[in-house]
Amino acid sequence: MPVRLDIRDPDFKDRFAALLGAKREAAADVEAAVRAIVEDVKARGDDALVALTQKFDGLDLGTAGAAGLRVTPAEVTAAVAACPPEDIAALTLARDRIEAYHRRQIPEDQRYTDALGVELGYRWTPVEAAGLYVPGGTAAYPSSVLMNAVPAKVAGVERLVMVVPAPGGKLAPLVLAAAQLAGVDEIFRVGGAQAVAALAYGTATIAPVDKIVGPGNAYVAAAKRIVFGKVGIDMIAGPSEVLIIADASADPQWIAADLLAQAEHDAAAQSILITTDAAFAHAVEAAVESQLATLPREKIAAASWRDHGAVILVETLDQAVGLADAVAAEHLELAVADPAPLVDRIRHAGAIFVGTHTPEAVGDYVAGSNHVLPTARSARFSSGLGVLDFMKRTSILRCGPDQLAAIGPAAVTLAKAEGLEAHARSVALRLAGAAAK
Amino acid sequence: MPVRLDIRDPDFKDRFAALLGAKREAAADVEAAVRAIVEDVKARGDDALVALTQKFDGLDLGTAGAAGLRVTPAEVTAAVAACPPEDIAALTLARDRIEAYHRRQIPEDQRYTDALGVELGYRWTPVEAAGLYVPGGTAAYPSSVLMNAVPAKVAGVERLVMVVPAPGGKLAPLVLAAAQLAGVDEIFRVGGAQAVAALAYGTATIAPVDKIVGPGNAYVAAAKRIVFGKVGIDMIAGPSEVLIIADASADPQWIAADLLAQAEHDAAAQSILITTDAAFAHAVEAAVESQLATLPREKIAAASWRDHGAVILVETLDQAVGLADAVAAEHLELAVADPAPLVDRIRHAGAIFVGTHTPEAVGDYVAGSNHVLPTARSARFSSGLGVLDFMKRTSILRCGPDQLAAIGPAAVTLAKAEGLEAHARSVALRLAGAAAK
Repeated sequence: MPVRLDIRDPDFKDRFAALLGAKREAAADVEAAVRAIVEDVKARGDDALVALTQKFDGLDLGTAGAAGLRVTPAEVTAAVAACPPEDIAALTLARDRIEAYHRRQIPEDQRYTDALGVELGYRWTPVEAAGLYVPGGTAAYPSSVLMNAVPAKVAGVERLVMVVPAPGGKLAPLVLAAAQLAGVDEIFRVGGAQAVAALAYGTATIAPVDKIVGPGNAYVAAAKRIVFGKVGIDMIAGPSEVLIIADASADPQWIAADLLAQAEHDAAAQSILITTDAAFAHAVEAAVESQLATLPREKIAAASWRDHGAVILVETLDQAVGLADAVAAEHLELAVADPAPLVDRIRHAGAIFVGTHTPEAVGDYVAGSNHVLPTARSARFSSGLGVLDFMKRTSILRCGPDQLAAIGPAAVTLAKAEGLEAHARSVALRLAGAAAK
Repeated sequence: MPVRLDIRDPDFKDRFAALLGAKREAAADVEAAVRAIVEDVKARGDDALVALTQKFDGLDLGTAGAAGLRVTPAEVTAAVAACPPEDIAALTLARDRIEAYHRRQIPEDQRYTDALGVELGYRWTPVEAAGLYVPGGTAAYPSSVLMNAVPAKVAGVERLVMVVPAPGGKLAPLVLAAAQLAGVDEIFRVGGAQAVAALAYGTATIAPVDKIVGPGNAYVAAAKRIVFGKVGIDMIAGPSEVLIIADASADPQWIAADLLAQAEHDAAAQSILITTDAAFAHAVEAAVESQLATLPREKIAAASWRDHGAVILVETLDQAVGLADAVAAEHLELAVADPAPLVDRIRHAGAIFVGTHTPEAVGDYVAGSNHVLPTARSARFSSGLGVLDFMKRTSILRCGPDQLAAIGPAAVTLAKAEGLEAHARSVALRLAGAAAK
């Protein structure tokens, strides 16, 4: 059963701290194995990809060799045709809404001339080529393809390359459909650390990219850490979590379903309910138990709720806000009668779902905001995936002789104070040149 | 002597690739030592800090113990009084200009209601507490204090904590002055991996922060990698580099000084000149040799220029732009007669310094743009330090019953397609609730 806390308990502070500090996931020690795979791909390129794909995915590329890694347009077209039309329609709605939301994230450049005449500013440009890792098998989520690929395309990424393992040669048709809808440019049936290495270092078949995003297992995460620096990477995602602040205006069945939607992801997922109402808390707990019985992923959800779930009683919603900021949850639902004042006061959360008719699941799929969000309290210092993750900023500076005459002497002073004589000289020579004229 | 390349050489492509790929810095293997230090600080807190400060900095805190780590306001005031007034004036000018530049980076929130009535948007909030690592000894640069601290304060960071080692008890007065000018809230005389660990995990004396920025040696860099996840970190900076595109309109002496300003940082720094004019290239090389003789940091600069410097001849400035994008330099100077068309075409650079009167050094100190920039080709996918590094974005979503009725069914379809029944249920229960009314 979940942890039950009451803010009035004398040991509440310690127990809440223990809840926050609990490790939910044992880090698998795969670093040495992954390092060997990355080195193999660096050294042997396509040959390594073919061999590792045979070894890990049971996929024999035969005489096609590495060329067989590429998923052809004809395959994608056939996959799309095999998808139920209502699935394609739902994906298309999601794509359109994600695109509309992310278009508002395109940053503005700045170019201005200050009072001294110094021209200043900065310019945003897209990453040229990006790679998107997509897990295979049961965790192949077309919604994740959209959430990663659409912001890249909105940012202006020219070459978006998807890698996805095809265990036994099988690819999920809806994943290919999502890639097509999102405008993915190249798809390769390769996964694991070898796919990440290929994206970072390139092979004859897969040209290298500048940034790699997307979720994956421990091997993929370790490979991303190893290639970081050579290329950019997105966050390393931990297990997912939801924090729901609810009062008695919410339907306990709805809140129970929301808690379970988080719990069904992973036994390491975490669902926390904070409420001012003890009777409501009991009703939600009872609803969780009854709903669990009819869930296909009952075992996973039950383990998550039992091992990591929590129900916290507070006296006031003010107290709930304080606890929510301490949790800095990936997902925060405000299922209360009057959520607006709470929205304004929350400081740390990946995403806020406002009001009882906004379950997290609508944001996971079709609302338009991104579902790739900071986990494990990292919302204190990081943001969900967005357009900025696929862009970078170049600062621009221009002085003429008059501007350098105005601010250059201070640069000379500071350079000398730091013992950097060549810095001072590079400014001073120009000042002297101007003075001599 | 530097590498000399000519784009017309038959082996140019390979030699240019070799220049790009050359490792300039051997990674020191300090991970095990750093991990032990981090664990020690986690386990023993202040006691570890006192012991490690004695061991590494030769600083005996005596009866004050860990309380003696805090640099008092009186010490800061005394340090400022000891600084030459012209240095304080130059720092103040730099502070004001950095603040003005970074104020323009404050991002705008978005809140809007779409055609269906769904309320969407996102909100930027500051990181609550940030730590700034400042190296001690000869690499104690007051300009770096400003470049890291001012954006944090502009972002709205409430608690900005500076850590700086005091070898033998000594602190650079101008570093303390910069901290005061930038509004740093707390200063501790502690450095190395132990300082990073204290900022990440907290001790009785040093409360933990959410994000750690600032340059440091191999121990500091390794500690930042280890605590990443627990807290946010900025980039791990590599050795610095400048790429100068120049034509005969530039003064060879000025360009030589600019190349040496980069080279004097570090023997691993890299200075590259690209020019269309062979005679100009020769003149710059000769000027480098003659200026080297009178540099206090001659040895460092000479080693950098000899081991990593390069002079590249091209036929057209168009070709220079292509090479500059491949280098994706931290600093790019466009010292040509007509730089504006080049500015527009460059895609990858940390910062662009436009025209012959804009030496990089003016940007290093007083122009206002940030001097913490992406090194080692990472400008392909990352940006210089800025206000956004101290803020994070929370997405906000609100549906009412009508909005959920409009987009919820597609969420149910996708959740079922992904086999996530509890996700589907959390939306479907609400749709059924609305339908029953």
